[in-house]
Amino acid sequence: MHDDFGMTSPEGLPTSGTGPLLARASNGQPLRQQIFEKIRAEGQTSRADMSRALTVSPGSVTALTSDLIALGLVQQVETQTREGSRGRPRVGLEVVSDAHRVIGIKIGDQAHTAVIADFSGAVMAEASRPARPGQQTPEAQLKEIDALLGDLSRVSGMPLSAVSAIGVGIAGMVDHASGIVAWSPRIAGRDYPLKSVMEQRFACPVHVDNDTNMLTLAELWFGAGRAMPDFVVVTIEHGVGMGMVLGNRLFRGTRGMGLELGHTKVQFDGALCRCGQRGCLEAYVADYALVREAATVLHGTDTTDPRSLLAQLYAEATDGNAAARAIFDRASRYLAMGLANVMQILDPELVIISGERMQYDYLYSAEMQADVEALVLDSGRPAARIETHAWGDMIWARGASALALTAITDQLLGEVA
Amino acid sequence: MHDDFGMTSPEGLPTSGTGPLLARASNGQPLRQQIFEKIRAEGQTSRADMSRALTVSPGSVTALTSDLIALGLVQQVETQTREGSRGRPRVGLEVVSDAHRVIGIKIGDQAHTAVIADFSGAVMAEASRPARPGQQTPEAQLKEIDALLGDLSRVSGMPLSAVSAIGVGIAGMVDHASGIVAWSPRIAGRDYPLKSVMEQRFACPVHVDNDTNMLTLAELWFGAGRAMPDFVVVTIEHGVGMGMVLGNRLFRGTRGMGLELGHTKVQFDGALCRCGQRGCLEAYVADYALVREAATVLHGTDTTDPRSLLAQLYAEATDGNAAARAIFDRASRYLAMGLANVMQILDPELVIISGERMQYDYLYSAEMQADVEALVLDSGRPAARIETHAWGDMIWARGASALALTAITDQLLGEVA
Repeated sequence: MHDDFGMTSPEGLPTSGTGPLLARASNGQPLRQQIFEKIRAEGQTSRADMSRALTVSPGSVTALTSDLIALGLVQQVETQTREGSRGRPRVGLEVVSDAHRVIGIKIGDQAHTAVIADFSGAVMAEASRPARPGQQTPEAQLKEIDALLGDLSRVSGMPLSAVSAIGVGIAGMVDHASGIVAWSPRIAGRDYPLKSVMEQRFACPVHVDNDTNMLTLAELWFGAGRAMPDFVVVTIEHGVGMGMVLGNRLFRGTRGMGLELGHTKVQFDGALCRCGQRGCLEAYVADYALVREAATVLHGTDTTDPRSLLAQLYAEATDGNAAARAIFDRASRYLAMGLANVMQILDPELVIISGERMQYDYLYSAEMQADVEALVLDSGRPAARIETHAWGDMIWARGASALALTAITDQLLGEVA
Repeated sequence: MHDDFGMTSPEGLPTSGTGPLLARASNGQPLRQQIFEKIRAEGQTSRADMSRALTVSPGSVTALTSDLIALGLVQQVETQTREGSRGRPRVGLEVVSDAHRVIGIKIGDQAHTAVIADFSGAVMAEASRPARPGQQTPEAQLKEIDALLGDLSRVSGMPLSAVSAIGVGIAGMVDHASGIVAWSPRIAGRDYPLKSVMEQRFACPVHVDNDTNMLTLAELWFGAGRAMPDFVVVTIEHGVGMGMVLGNRLFRGTRGMGLELGHTKVQFDGALCRCGQRGCLEAYVADYALVREAATVLHGTDTTDPRSLLAQLYAEATDGNAAARAIFDRASRYLAMGLANVMQILDPELVIISGERMQYDYLYSAEMQADVEALVLDSGRPAARIETHAWGDMIWARGASALALTAITDQLLGEVA
C-alpha cells in the first residue's frame, strides 16, 4: 500500500473537502451535530452566539447551519428587537419542532409513564398507568407498555406510526448498545432482548437504557446540566443508582451497563444485599434493607406491604421511637459514606440526589450532607455541591425521550463523511 | 448588540477561515495539536494514516501538517519501502526532536529522580539522588532539586538554559493549575507555591502535579495507554494514589487536586488515617498502617526504621508467622474492596496497579485479584482487567517530562484563533 497523497508536495493537494467541517468536536460529536444540539439546547440562538460558544469560525457556523436548514431540521426566525433599538431585526435559529416525534417511556415499579415529545424536546402529551410492583414476565410488561402507548396515542391524537423513535428507561443492568436487559427488578429472568422485541412490536427504532441514565439525561437536557458540562446524579429508589455526565455527554463506562454505586462495598462482610453479596451500599439504604429491620420496631404490624410498612416506620421515627430512628440514621450515615467515596474518586463539581423517596427527608437532610463533608478529605478548597431534586416519574420519561432524540440526530448528523 | 453576520443571507458569507481547521477535536484539543500529538505518539506516521485515524479529510491533514512543518515542529522523512515493492518511497512525518528539551522531576521519599527529554519524548539523560524520608522544609527540598539538576546538566552536557520547561511530580494534594502544593508528605507546611518559586529559580516555565498523575501520564505516553483511550492507574506507595485517563487525556476532577482513592472510606469509624479521619483505605493498606501493627508480631525489634520493620514483618509472614500474615492479608482484602469500588463506580476497561511496593506481592497477588472479582457485581459480562506494572522511579520522572512537553504544545498549538 502506498500513501496516496501528500507524498512529495503536500501543498499541491486539495485543502477543501468536508473533513474539517465534520471534525469531531470536544464531546465527540461532529461539529454539525454539535451546532444542532446547541440550537436545541438554547431553544433559540444566533449564529454569532454559536460561533463564540463553540469557538468555531463564523464562516463554518454559517455553512453548517445552511446544511441543517436544507435538511429541514433547523429554521430561521426573526426575533423581536428591543423596543426602541434601531437597525435590522435579529435572525435567530431554532429546531423545526415537527421534523420528528419521539416517545419516552419509564417502566416503573409503582407506575409506568410515557411522554410524546417533538423534535425540540418539548412534551406534547403524557400518560401514566399503575404498575404491578416487583418482577413481571416480559409478556406482562409488554402488555402494560401496549396499553400505556395506546393511552398516549389517544391523549395526543397521534398514531404510533407518526413516531420516529422510542426511548425506554428501566431499572437494572441494561446493555445500552445491544438493548439487552441483563437483569432488572422489573423483568423476570436474565438477558431479555427488550430493544429487538419492542422494535418488532412497534415497527420503529427503540433505545433502551438504565433508568438512572435517563434521569441523568433529563438533568442534562432540562435541568441543572444545561449549565454544567460535568456532574453526577445519584438516585435512591428501590435501589441506589448513579449516572454521570462528562463533557456534556453521558458516561456509560466500558460495558455500557451503568455505574453501580449501590453495589460499592461500605462494610466488609456486611449486610446481605439482594445481589447476593454482603456490605453493598444498597443493603443499608434501599427499602428492603430498612424493611427487614422494621419487625424489631413494629410489633404486630402487617408486613406484607413493604411500602406501608416503610411509611409506618418513618412515622414512628418522626414520633421519637429511638429504634425506628436508629434504622433511618444508619441508612443516612451509610449513604453519606457512599457519596463521600464518589466525591473522593471523581472530584465532581455537583452531585444531584434524586428519586421518589423525597418524602423521607433523612436521606436528604442537612445532617447527611454534613456527614458527607466530614468524610471527604480536607483539601483546603470548597467541597462539591450537593443538590437534592424532587422529580416525579414524568421526568424519567422525558429523559427517555431525550435518549430517542439523541439517537435520531446521531443517525442523521453523527456520521463523519 | 446586533448579530453581525448571517442575518439574511448566510450563503453570501465567507465559508473560508481557520475556524474549522482549529476546531477542537474529541479530546478537547484543536485539530492541529491533535495531529502533532498523533505524530509524536506514533514516532513516525503518514498523512493517510492520520486522516483515517482522526477521521479528518486528507486536505485538512495536509494543510495542518504543512503548518506544523513551517513552525519547525514536524519534519518529513522518506521511509524505506518493503524490499521488492515498486513505486515511490513512502513519506513519513516525525517530530523535530531537538525543537525543545524538557526536564521531568519526581520528588521522592527515598530518592529524587530527573530526566531530560527531547521534543519527541525520548530520554536524553537521567539522574538520581538519595532523598531524606519524610517532610522536609521547602528550602531543603529546593537545595536537593538544585543538586539533582546540576547532576543532570553534567551527565547530559546540557546547560539548564537549554531547557524549555520543567515538569515536577510530588506526592500529596497539588493544585495543578496554580502549581501550589496544598499538602504533601514531602514538604512541611501547607499551600507551598512550588511552581512560582521554581520558575524564579530556574527561569523557565514549571508545571507541578500530583505524582500519581505523572505515572498515569507515563502510562498514557509510553505504556499501556498508548492503545487505550480510558484507563485507571492505582499506585501503592506510602499512600494510595489514583489517576485516570478519559479520552486520551488526564482527568483531574473539578479542583484539579487528584483523585483520592486512598481516602475513600472502607470501614465506618475504622482505623485511624494520617489525614485525621477514620476508615480510609490508606489506613489499612499504607506502610504506616502495617507498621503500627508490627509491634504485636516483632517483639524487641528496632522500630525506628519503618522500612526495615516492614521488610522484617514481610519475612515473618513468608516464614509462616500467622499474625504477620494476618496483617498483610487484611491489607490485601481492603485493597481489593477499594479497587472493586472504583470498578463499580467507573466501569473501566483496565486498572493498572503500580508502585514501588512491588516486592510485596500480597498487594498484587492472584488472591487479591480474585477478591476484587468476587466483590464486583456480576453483570454477566467480562470484568475489568487488572494489570500490575513494576516501574522504577525513572518512569515517574518521564511522566513529569510528558507533562512539560504537553504544556509546550498546549501553548504553541492549543489556542483557537
